[in-house]
Order: sequence, then structure tokens, then C-alpha cells
Amino acid sequence: MTSPPFEDGSGTTLPFERAEYAARLAKTRAAMNAAGLDMLLVSDPSNMAWLTGYDGWSFYTHQAVIVPGEGDPFWWGRAMDARGARRTVWMGDDAIVGYEDHYVQNPDLHPMEALGDLLAARGLARGRIGVEMDNYYYSAKAHQALAERLEGCALIDAEGLINWQRAVKSPAELSFMRRAARIVQAMHGMIAEIAEPGLAKNVLVAEIMKAGTLGADGHWGDYPAIMPLTPSGMDATAPHLTWDDRPMQAGEATFFEIAGVYRRYHCPQSRTVFLGEPPQRYRDAERAVLLAVDAGLAAGQPGRTCGDMADAFFDTLEAHGFSKDSRAGYSIGLSYPPDWGERTMSIRRGDPTVLEPGMTLHFMPALWLDDGGLEITEPVVITDTGAQCLTETPRGLVVK
Amino acid sequence: MTSPPFEDGSGTTLPFERAEYAARLAKTRAAMNAAGLDMLLVSDPSNMAWLTGYDGWSFYTHQAVIVPGEGDPFWWGRAMDARGARRTVWMGDDAIVGYEDHYVQNPDLHPMEALGDLLAARGLARGRIGVEMDNYYYSAKAHQALAERLEGCALIDAEGLINWQRAVKSPAELSFMRRAARIVQAMHGMIAEIAEPGLAKNVLVAEIMKAGTLGADGHWGDYPAIMPLTPSGMDATAPHLTWDDRPMQAGEATFFEIAGVYRRYHCPQSRTVFLGEPPQRYRDAERAVLLAVDAGLAAGQPGRTCGDMADAFFDTLEAHGFSKDSRAGYSIGLSYPPDWGERTMSIRRGDPTVLEPGMTLHFMPALWLDDGGLEITEPVVITDTGAQCLTETPRGLVVK
Repeated sequence: MTSPPFEDGSGTTLPFERAEYAARLAKTRAAMNAAGLDMLLVSDPSNMAWLTGYDGWSFYTHQAVIVPGEGDPFWWGRAMDARGARRTVWMGDDAIVGYEDHYVQNPDLHPMEALGDLLAARGLARGRIGVEMDNYYYSAKAHQALAERLEGCALIDAEGLINWQRAVKSPAELSFMRRAARIVQAMHGMIAEIAEPGLAKNVLVAEIMKAGTLGADGHWGDYPAIMPLTPSGMDATAPHLTWDDRPMQAGEATFFEIAGVYRRYHCPQSRTVFLGEPPQRYRDAERAVLLAVDAGLAAGQPGRTCGDMADAFFDTLEAHGFSKDSRAGYSIGLSYPPDWGERTMSIRRGDPTVLEPGMTLHFMPALWLDDGGLEITEPVVITDTGAQCLTETPRGLVVK
Repeated sequence: MTSPPFEDGSGTTLPFERAEYAARLAKTRAAMNAAGLDMLLVSDPSNMAWLTGYDGWSFYTHQAVIVPGEGDPFWWGRAMDARGARRTVWMGDDAIVGYEDHYVQNPDLHPMEALGDLLAARGLARGRIGVEMDNYYYSAKAHQALAERLEGCALIDAEGLINWQRAVKSPAELSFMRRAARIVQAMHGMIAEIAEPGLAKNVLVAEIMKAGTLGADGHWGDYPAIMPLTPSGMDATAPHLTWDDRPMQAGEATFFEIAGVYRRYHCPQSRTVFLGEPPQRYRDAERAVLLAVDAGLAAGQPGRTCGDMADAFFDTLEAHGFSKDSRAGYSIGLSYPPDWGERTMSIRRGDPTVLEPGMTLHFMPALWLDDGGLEITEPVVITDTGAQCLTETPRGLVVK
């Protein structure tokens, strides 16, 4: 496999070869046909990038990739971002359409009005049109404005249609995931090295951000779809707090939920640092989690389900006296903020998703106890022979 | 003024004093009354934080602050994040309600169904309910699920209702903005110091991320709502590209659109570095922009409008032979990803917003030319006597 970026001579650079995008489009078309869709409007930046290569921090304004029933997809967005599309998508310039800037954050106009007019002009305002109803970047107002402009069309909920096509990674994607894994492993190694009582949390996070961006093993680091979550002590009883400048303290646990990222592919992993001697109850929790992780990984066989992994994990955890009232993982891969999950399968009792080789998951058995948090997590790839951890980060509590 | 964080003895820390939150709630209630709303559902994380103090990276699942017609607002979200709410909001524990984890990213259920039931149980499922129709975190599906559950209520578009209350900053907020300004000034100083031909872009960005998180003048740095935008050469003809590992090159311009952030308050600022001797055409563009910035700043008087600032800016730019087909700025303050703007006023011809002392704006006169980009921008505060720059970052191109 040659290495990215791939250049086509026109100034465009792509993370994958053209054949990979063709295969993705073919999978998407098959799913569209199965759902009886004439057209698909893709608002999720991760899905836009997966289909076309588009990469830019422009998702704070309305934009989309439109997949008609046949032919190339086209990119639609703010006119100034059409310039970025020309640098990053595999389609030609005639498949890039910008709307004028006065539509942006203007209470009297909505960009979806412009899109409706464009679709009508191209003869695409007809039939069953898929939209990603629960995506962050397809707002209630966007849907309302589009529906008004596309009277006579049926807007069909196609939430997750592309996300599910992304579940099984190609060999090229798996190589990206492994590069991201090396990065997060390096980040955790650095944290274990420098964490100590008195270190201001933001100073430690500054080093985490630096390490993640430098990358590892000659591969540069991209930005994470979720900022480092690094709470200590009682703040670590909650899962999603970020940081301030309070110093780390002896006797406290701090978890670090972070990701290594290579060309938008995420390998998240959490580890927990305890400064001083952990109390027995905390050691008991660690032991229960590690045994439950082993059980969950053993159940991660192709042909079994996410629900089977969850059953193995939760049964073992509960047998050792702990419980958890939230899911224990989710699918991972290409992502943009605000979520590094793919929003498809979950490691949750009853989840019927059948595991297949090439799926990648963040097995995320976090405990948020009443007096502190414990996160020891494993990003995994499902192989022919079972779940394989993507990193070699030492498992278990980091005690310093 | 005493300094944050403010602790209330229950383990909660707040960035502002309680009186500030009371004043914000009173302003919000007045706006609700003016709009004839019985209740307001706040989905925008920036608005949630401004009203209640809530701070966590949990906005990738559905959550809200609900402001009833009278009494305290309440926080609603995923059960695990109720723990984070207890650590960060000024309301008591009885004003924090979590929904169960099986609602999360589950195609068969939607969290808004749980919210609808909760509102009904509290006697709030009646009358005119404001919703933020165009917010990233109020999806088409969220609206649909809520509307189905709240039959008989009128869901009214209240997009921007709170954002507009945030436009004029309090003295405490202005002190946060000035701290953020010192941070971005330090970041640009560092960039000017280390940028050089051959430096891999991600290595430079690693230092930017580190500097932003370390903070400045004894104030720690928070994460930005937009990652550093740092394109070089032809990539800088586009506004929103991020980075990779290609080295900086002699003869190329690179712009750095970054923000200093203090407790979620953003001070964005862009500067452009040219390695080598800029061509005359580029110097001409710089001169035109600097004169146009001066003209725009001079027009930034209280009582005049954003449109007046835009006219002064665009007229001057055009008189010097350059043009720009996008807005030249927007309101700034408290923000969460994906946008550090407040999404209210824009520096755009015809914008009728009357400038008032205490407003803060990113005056953003960027040019994306056919052969490169030029961004030299100024975050400003409107004072009694006019627009005042928040930083002392030297204006003009950085030539090395």
C-alpha cells in the first residue's frame, strides 16, 4: 500500500486512493436502493468526508454532500468553503457549488432555501430524498426550510444509512486506525511519566495536546473530535468534564479519556492515574473491570453480537460486586466534533449487531463511582479470530 | 472583583457569582415575555452555560436547560452527565434530571420522548414553548420527536433569543475576554518567533495548542470552539482548512486563525506569516486591508450600526482595489464547538444592529485571493468612545 496523501495534479490531496472512494459510493448507492431513495442529502461531516474526502472546519455553517441516483455526488456549501472543497474532494470543480455569504447566520434567510432552488434547477427535486434527521448538522430549521422548498418530495429519515456502511473498515482505513493507536499509546506513556502531585491540570493537558498533534512513529496527529477529558477526584465521578488549573493531588484518581487521531481516524483510549496508594475498594473496582474487560474481549468473536460482548462484560462486572448503568462501548473510525463515535452499534445488552472482521470499537468499561472515577478502556478491531486490542498501552491503574 | 472559581460549599464551582446568573435569568425572562413564551427549551451549549454554569463535553447527546415561566431553570440530560451538572450548575440537585442510557444513540428511542414525558409530569406541557430551531444541538429528529410528544403545545422558533441577551458583556465577562486576549496575543508572539521554512506544520500547531492551554499572565487556557486554522500557500486560498505535516516553505504565506480561551470565553485573532519577501501585489492587499480596518474601527462607535462598520470597511477596501464577498466579522464571547461566534450580529452591509458599549466583536477582514490568503483580524470591545482592540498584537503581515 502506498502512503497518503494522494495527489491528482490539480492541487487536490486525498487521504485514500480513488478506488476506495468508488467502493464507498457503490456501497452507499446499494443502501440507497435498498431504502428506496432517489437521492441522499448527507449533512454529517464524517459521512461527507468518507464519501468525498472533504475536510475543513466549515460545519458550523450549513453544507452537504448530495448523492443523486446516478453519477458523481456533489458538494454544496458556503461559497468561501467551495475553495476548500476544491482542495480536498475527488470530484471535479463542476461538482462543487457554493451559496452566497448573505445566507450565513442571517435570520431572514436560510441556506436550505438556496439548496432547494439548486435541486429544483438540477431536476433533483423529486421522489424520495433521504436526510440525516438526527445529525448535529441537520437542524430542525434546516429540515423545515428544505421541506417548504421541496413540496411534493418525500423527505425520508436516512439517519445512520452511511454510518452503517462505515462500520467495516478497509485495509487502508485499518492502517490509519493503527497509526492513531500508536499516537494514543504515546500520549498515555507521556501522561504516566509526568503526572505528579502539584502539577496544574492545564499544564498536563498542554502536553497532551502537544503530543497528540506531534503524532508518533513518523505519523502526524490530527485534532480529536472530543477534547481531552481529564477530571480528578470528585470531578471524576462525572464522565465529561474537561480541565482547569487546579493541581493534581496525592490520594486522588484522575482519568484521561483521550484519542490519538490520524487523518480524522480516531483511536480513543482511557487510562486512570492514582497518585499515592489506592484504597482497597478502588483496587477491587480495578480488578472487577479488568476481569470484565477480559470476558468482553473473549466474546468479541465474529458472528457473535455487540449484545453478547455486553452480556459477558456486565455479567462479570456484576459477579464481582460492581455495576454500571450505561453502555460499555461503541463503533469508532472517521470523526468530526462533537463525537468520536460512529453512532451505530453500541456495546449494550440486547444490541443485535453481528460482529464482523474489520469492525473497530471503543470498548469503554468506565465506572463513575460515588467518590471517584475509573476508566481503563480498549480500542479494538474485530479480526477473523476475535477482538484484538489496537494498542499495547499497559492495562490497569497507573499508580505513582 | 474577586476571582473565579466561586465555590458554594457543595462541591460546585462556578465561573461567575450568583448575582450574575440571576441577572442573566432576569434578562432571559424579559425576552421570553416579550416573545409571549410560557417556557424556553435551551439546546445551545453556550446558552446553557451562560444561564446555569453547566460545563461539560456532553453536547454530543441530547440535553437542554428548561426555563419555565417562573422559578429556577432546570438541567436535563443523559443520566451520567447529571453528575457533571451537579459539579457545575448553580441550581440545586432537584433541578437536575437525567434520562436513562438506553435512550442514547438508539434508533428505536429518542431522548426527546423522555423529555416530553417529563414536561407533562411537571405540568409544563402547555402553551407556547420556545425552541432553538437552527441550533446544532436541536436536530430535525429532536424537534419531530418532541412535537409528537407535546401535541397541543405550540413550538415557537426562539433561535437567538438568548444569544442576543449575551451581546453586551458584563464587567466580569469583559475581564474574561481580556484574559483570553492576553492568551491569543502570547500565541501569536510564539508563532512569529518559531515559524520558519522547513518547520512541519503539525509541529508548529502542537506548540500553538500547548501555548493556548498553558494560558498567559497566570490565567489558564481552555479549549477553543474551533481548532487552529493554519493553511499555507494555495491551501490558504480557502478559509477553513486545518493542518498536516507538510513543511512551511519560503515564498509562501500562512495564516493562523486561532483563539485564546479563558473559561469558555473566546478571543479569536488571525495573523499571517510570509516567509521571504512578499510580492508587491500581496503588499498592496495588506495595505488595503490595514486602511480598511482603520476605517472600520473608526466607525465602531456606540449608536452606529454593524452595517456602518461594514460600509466603512468595504468602501475603503474597494477604493484600494480589493474586494471581499463575505462578511467582515461577528459577535464573540462564551462558546462551545463548532463555532466561536455568537450567531447574532454580523459586520455586513445592511446589518441594522446598533453598537452598544460592552459588545465584543471579531472584526475579521480576511481576504482569500486566487493565489493565497491574508488574514489580519482584530477582536474589539465597543466602549463609550468607540471600538477598542482587545490585544496589542502588532498589526500587519509578519515577514520572516
